[in-house]
Amino acid sequence: MNSGRFKVDLNCDMGESYGIYQIGNDEAILPYITSANIACGFHAGDPRVMRRTVKKALKYNVAIGAHPGLPDLQGFGRRQMAISAKETYNIVVYQIGALTAFVQSEGGVLRHVKPHGALYNMAAANKSLAEAIAEAVYRVNPLLVLFGLSGSELIRAGSKIGLRVANEVFADRTYEDNGMLTSRKFPNALITDEEAACTQCLTMVKDGFVTSTNGIKIAINADTVGLHSDGEHAALFAAKIHTQFKEENIALQAP
Amino acid sequence: MNSGRFKVDLNCDMGESYGIYQIGNDEAILPYITSANIACGFHAGDPRVMRRTVKKALKYNVAIGAHPGLPDLQGFGRRQMAISAKETYNIVVYQIGALTAFVQSEGGVLRHVKPHGALYNMAAANKSLAEAIAEAVYRVNPLLVLFGLSGSELIRAGSKIGLRVANEVFADRTYEDNGMLTSRKFPNALITDEEAACTQCLTMVKDGFVTSTNGIKIAINADTVGLHSDGEHAALFAAKIHTQFKEENIALQAP
Amino acid sequence: MNSGRFKVDLNCDMGESYGIYQIGNDEAILPYITSANIACGFHAGDPRVMRRTVKKALKYNVAIGAHPGLPDLQGFGRRQMAISAKETYNIVVYQIGALTAFVQSEGGVLRHVKPHGALYNMAAANKSLAEAIAEAVYRVNPLLVLFGLSGSELIRAGSKIGLRVANEVFADRTYEDNGMLTSRKFPNALITDEEAACTQCLTMVKDGFVTSTNGIKIAINADTVGLHSDGEHAALFAAKIHTQFKEENIALQAP
Amino acid sequence: MNSGRFKVDLNCDMGESYGIYQIGNDEAILPYITSANIACGFHAGDPRVMRRTVKKALKYNVAIGAHPGLPDLQGFGRRQMAISAKETYNIVVYQIGALTAFVQSEGGVLRHVKPHGALYNMAAANKSLAEAIAEAVYRVNPLLVLFGLSGSELIRAGSKIGLRVANEVFADRTYEDNGMLTSRKFPNALITDEEAACTQCLTMVKDGFVTSTNGIKIAINADTVGLHSDGEHAALFAAKIHTQFKEENIALQAP
Repeated sequence: MNSGRFKVDLNCDMGESYGIYQIGNDEAILPYITSANIACGFHAGDPRVMRRTVKKALKYNVAIGAHPGLPDLQGFGRRQMAISAKETYNIVVYQIGALTAFVQSEGGVLRHVKPHGALYNMAAANKSLAEAIAEAVYRVNPLLVLFGLSGSELIRAGSKIGLRVANEVFADRTYEDNGMLTSRKFPNALITDEEAACTQCLTMVKDGFVTSTNGIKIAINADTVGLHSDGEHAALFAAKIHTQFKEENIALQAP
Repeated sequence: MNSGRFKVDLNCDMGESYGIYQIGNDEAILPYITSANIACGFHAGDPRVMRRTVKKALKYNVAIGAHPGLPDLQGFGRRQMAISAKETYNIVVYQIGALTAFVQSEGGVLRHVKPHGALYNMAAANKSLAEAIAEAVYRVNPLLVLFGLSGSELIRAGSKIGLRVANEVFADRTYEDNGMLTSRKFPNALITDEEAACTQCLTMVKDGFVTSTNGIKIAINADTVGLHSDGEHAALFAAKIHTQFKEENIALQAP
Repeated sequence: MNSGRFKVDLNCDMGESYGIYQIGNDEAILPYITSANIACGFHAGDPRVMRRTVKKALKYNVAIGAHPGLPDLQGFGRRQMAISAKETYNIVVYQIGALTAFVQSEGGVLRHVKPHGALYNMAAANKSLAEAIAEAVYRVNPLLVLFGLSGSELIRAGSKIGLRVANEVFADRTYEDNGMLTSRKFPNALITDEEAACTQCLTMVKDGFVTSTNGIKIAINADTVGLHSDGEHAALFAAKIHTQFKEENIALQAP
Repeated sequence: MNSGRFKVDLNCDMGESYGIYQIGNDEAILPYITSANIACGFHAGDPRVMRRTVKKALKYNVAIGAHPGLPDLQGFGRRQMAISAKETYNIVVYQIGALTAFVQSEGGVLRHVKPHGALYNMAAANKSLAEAIAEAVYRVNPLLVLFGLSGSELIRAGSKIGLRVANEVFADRTYEDNGMLTSRKFPNALITDEEAACTQCLTMVKDGFVTSTNGIKIAINADTVGLHSDGEHAALFAAKIHTQFKEENIALQAP
């Protein structure tokens, strides 16, 4: 790659259907992303959905990652649970293994791990849980890339244990002065204007900063941009951001 | 190994505790067996139990296998379910993968797969399900050994797809003229006399036959003997049969 | 009501969403039916969905029934399981109780019970399971009406134990000479023409017979017609059949 | 009852087995208690266990209560979860209903509700969750008695909405100056000496105070004493405290 050329990964959570229940527009998003995080059966997904989603991701030549969550199907893994570091380690090992079997049996290779929902948020702030997750990933396969909130405890834990990490940023979320996401409890947490979202994203990738809700420029690492698969405009926005990166000559590639 | 020397594997289901619920005397049995079939979370076992059981099996240098079951914790995987061949394939891939991750992350290697309970019984008689299981095992890892009821559809399906197989026999169960187990519905299904159980076992391994409930000698392959981990006498019987095989100069080793 | 006037119940399964997963068009169907069968958390539904669905049914003044299923969320209760009569009794008692609490706490009264999916089919054909379900309903509340496939074992078991029963027929299913539904395995199982479906339905209610796939007139009891809540045309068909019954001066009312 | 005579309830959690997994010595404890809190299937218990436990409690003429927990079988309901007040309301209504059906179908009457584990602890400290639970109990049946930690938010919420409440104290736990239990994180949380435990209990019931770990006398309401069903000495201790209360002429009766 020639010097000065920027690159970024576009990732999206996938395979979050369950039994007869359908969710997400996986197939419509896949053409625009470079990494798919596939649910592993704890917060969503089941063996059939996992196999199908792996096959789709391979078809679109998208890097496959495990997307482990809390054991809470009813709450879609979004409710924080007081699990210990050891329990965290165990459920991450289990879920990476389950997905790996589908990837391998379909002729692919697992590339990364990105925790889901409450587990992702807990791992961003809690050093002990972050280290448990990093250790789980490392011990199952030290070549896996660990995805986490940019600049979070999870990224630190991954680097510390010797994993390659991918700092994740969001196009449609605002940031606080400390570089963390504005809580969804606040009205200004989301960027609903698509142009503004794209612009924030480009600035993070090319210039390495984001403007906080207080108007302060914050340095930020942007290795991968997290997109959403549900909602009417999910595929349109994925296509838009994909096009914009291409036009800016930013290489789209998995870490 | 010198010609003429007999060998056999002694296997036992393990890791069937769940959460705070304890079952089985795993640690008491491990010194006497050569293969441990570890539950994978569907009919029993959870991520913590799986990791602990893998560590114990490694400590005793026992070959580790996955013991996948139906998704029915409440029924302990003993209630037959009308699942399709494809669903069967999927749940077996998932469970093998989950256990593999624990084995690898603890520095071990997965050696075999033995279905549990109703899945084992369905796979013994139903060709389509048997082939689905064999395909799942083969596609995850063609080096795995497939354990199944001696002479059953599962053994045939495993051989056909190119897997190494282990014909399982039971010391404490009686056999019908067709070489299948007497159903537990009948009063003579179990051999409760330990001497008789040991004798049947030795005859199967050394002489290659078993005497049916009708008194007929039936040819039978006995690559591995299935022991039980629960009940007061489980460990005593395991020790007894272990000693008896040793005294008969029969090598005890995983397939 | 003047003599000679016909009456029938229109029922539909409802509340089959789960967590973030949405299914069915409950609110669009409710204006046209007289009985709602609400899922109880085993094959579908969760406590939040149950409360919301009960409230909707009360709002539309529709009779509420429990819709218990097998403990198989992943298979949506459609996979037969080899459960004993006693287990069947237990899971039905449990689920009726759970729904009753929501109905009572919202100021309503539970009116009926209709088993779901594989449990419904098993209860139609298996006398022992049918009697277990009837006993469960009776012992929880002998005033409940038991819904079952017209002329099935479940109807017989309900009558025998002293429950009021509702013989269920289907507008969009064909019938065999013995009065049972044509299995979905056969291409002629479904009536896709809406006019034909309405006509079959009216004939069953007014004239007490249905024409089998072999062209034979079969006597059939039609106390309630089962409608579906999913699919694009569900609400349209419900409205159509509702209108047609009204035009024929057939009273629509819960049993 | 003559004035001045003391009375107290002895309660114990029961029916916490699941499927083939056995836990607790329910039948050995039942002769000594006056209230049984029966698990409802979320943290422990299943429909079969519930029916059996209800029958045992009726046999010993012990008051039956529902013992609802968090939806976390793997963690036995002991891991706190970030559930909303509305979710709390829903899961409590559901579980009370499920148990009520077993009690009624066996000819009994449900008397009380006592939340389990993490739900009990969360309800003791969190006013919003406490009010959700109290509302759930009240709306299902305003005659039910609500059991909660003595002096806790749950007791306040129950009284406020108009329920009868039972302040629960523990024989084998130490108390802080504010009347709350010493956290199990601290080495002095448990009273292991049975004599000391009995003495503390008697003092709470007869004199209305407890001595904190700092040696300060704290006023405390003691309507019911919580016993444990697991462990070797559970039944012995239940018998001992039962005898001691009798000798002190304290009436043992459900609230």
